[in-house]
Amino acid sequence: MTGSTKPVAGYRLLLCYLGTPYAGWQRQVGKETVQGCIEAALQKIWDHPISLQGSGRTDTGVHAKGQIASFNAEGRHSPEVLVRALNANLPTSIRILQARIVSPEFHARFDAKGKTYEYLIRNHPIEDPFALNLCWHIPRPLDVPAMRRAMKCLVGKHDFASFTSNPGYERETTVRTVRSFQLIQKKEMLLFRITADGFLYRMVRNLVGGLVQVGRGKIPETEIKKILAAKKRSAAPATAPAHGLYMVKVYY
Amino acid sequence: MTGSTKPVAGYRLLLCYLGTPYAGWQRQVGKETVQGCIEAALQKIWDHPISLQGSGRTDTGVHAKGQIASFNAEGRHSPEVLVRALNANLPTSIRILQARIVSPEFHARFDAKGKTYEYLIRNHPIEDPFALNLCWHIPRPLDVPAMRRAMKCLVGKHDFASFTSNPGYERETTVRTVRSFQLIQKKEMLLFRITADGFLYRMVRNLVGGLVQVGRGKIPETEIKKILAAKKRSAAPATAPAHGLYMVKVYY
Repeated sequence: MTGSTKPVAGYRLLLCYLGTPYAGWQRQVGKETVQGCIEAALQKIWDHPISLQGSGRTDTGVHAKGQIASFNAEGRHSPEVLVRALNANLPTSIRILQARIVSPEFHARFDAKGKTYEYLIRNHPIEDPFALNLCWHIPRPLDVPAMRRAMKCLVGKHDFASFTSNPGYERETTVRTVRSFQLIQKKEMLLFRITADGFLYRMVRNLVGGLVQVGRGKIPETEIKKILAAKKRSAAPATAPAHGLYMVKVYY
Repeated sequence: MTGSTKPVAGYRLLLCYLGTPYAGWQRQVGKETVQGCIEAALQKIWDHPISLQGSGRTDTGVHAKGQIASFNAEGRHSPEVLVRALNANLPTSIRILQARIVSPEFHARFDAKGKTYEYLIRNHPIEDPFALNLCWHIPRPLDVPAMRRAMKCLVGKHDFASFTSNPGYERETTVRTVRSFQLIQKKEMLLFRITADGFLYRMVRNLVGGLVQVGRGKIPETEIKKILAAKKRSAAPATAPAHGLYMVKVYY
């Protein structure tokens, strides 16, 4: 900031990334993370450290098609120049799609009103070499109608404590409102799309994990409702792997 | 073969692979190749070395969605069991899709009557982190109508010497018959699909490289016809990168 006379501006970034090569979103010493890479690029451009806020953290291997991040810095660059400068300083597995100048009050995490995640499954006897890290491959047939019936009870306002991997991580309530939860089938691909006012830690992967147990016939479809009602993680089934999950949209 | 009493059978495999991690199709000492991986898997199953013939070699980084390969061995396995056994012994970036018992006379290369290749381009200012090794990323706009007009002269029977990287590599003629050559546009994706009775070394990548020069306005669209007529490689423009190319079908 030495010598700068320009006032501080708020910047809002829309970005996507392949989660495979990263130890998740959050900055960590000695590990390649998405936040770490973008902060390093910002530092190159502004010549001093800049702290970046994401709308939410993503775990190792989780992808994003529409992550939102914000930071404050002197208003030195037009959005178009900033997009080009950031992409020139980032690995190609992270791409800034858009930048906007916003109020310095804007905060990508605190101001988020909701999010949409997608979870992609490939249900086919043989793996697809072109989608190895981009979906969960499940070779045995899934009972999709049963999964659809089991999903219904999850829409609406509920205590999702049974579907978080670490309830203590949530500082306040484990109640969330799922606005919509769809399962779209297109040939061998199954796409879950879920929108909620917020998500608990690993909530989407735990929901998908439970529904896949239903689809495999390992638990009855009525079990999902019972797990939800139990309101404790110990009641929940296995977590779906990270590499099928995509953060796709954040609402403000 | 010790103690085996079963007669020798011909096997025909349909397979796909991600070219990225391989030094091409052809077996090479000290390098990971597709042929090398499959021959190693065959040796595990039959307990002796088996030589595999592909319908054609693919270069480092080139993908296949419908490669055909053949080998002869004692008729010990049903096609279904063989597919499962091979896939269990192969990296997931190579998948055997189908096996068939055929005449021991069948030869994947010598019997091929034609092939279809596809070449995928993403024409968008920003790279797609989810398709980094799966298409050629071209950030600046391409003149697709001009490329389509320039392609027309390539269909039919021609001497394609100008479009092979090493004409001396071809033992006989450099005349080939292109049965069809399409350019399909779907949003930012451009897909070339070409079918011919055979292809010279790097022919598809050299054709695409030339057409992209037209699309970029670096050479006039009439230049493609002149390059073809020159019948010498020195007349040809740049080669398109390997990672946009897919072998998709072989005809017998």
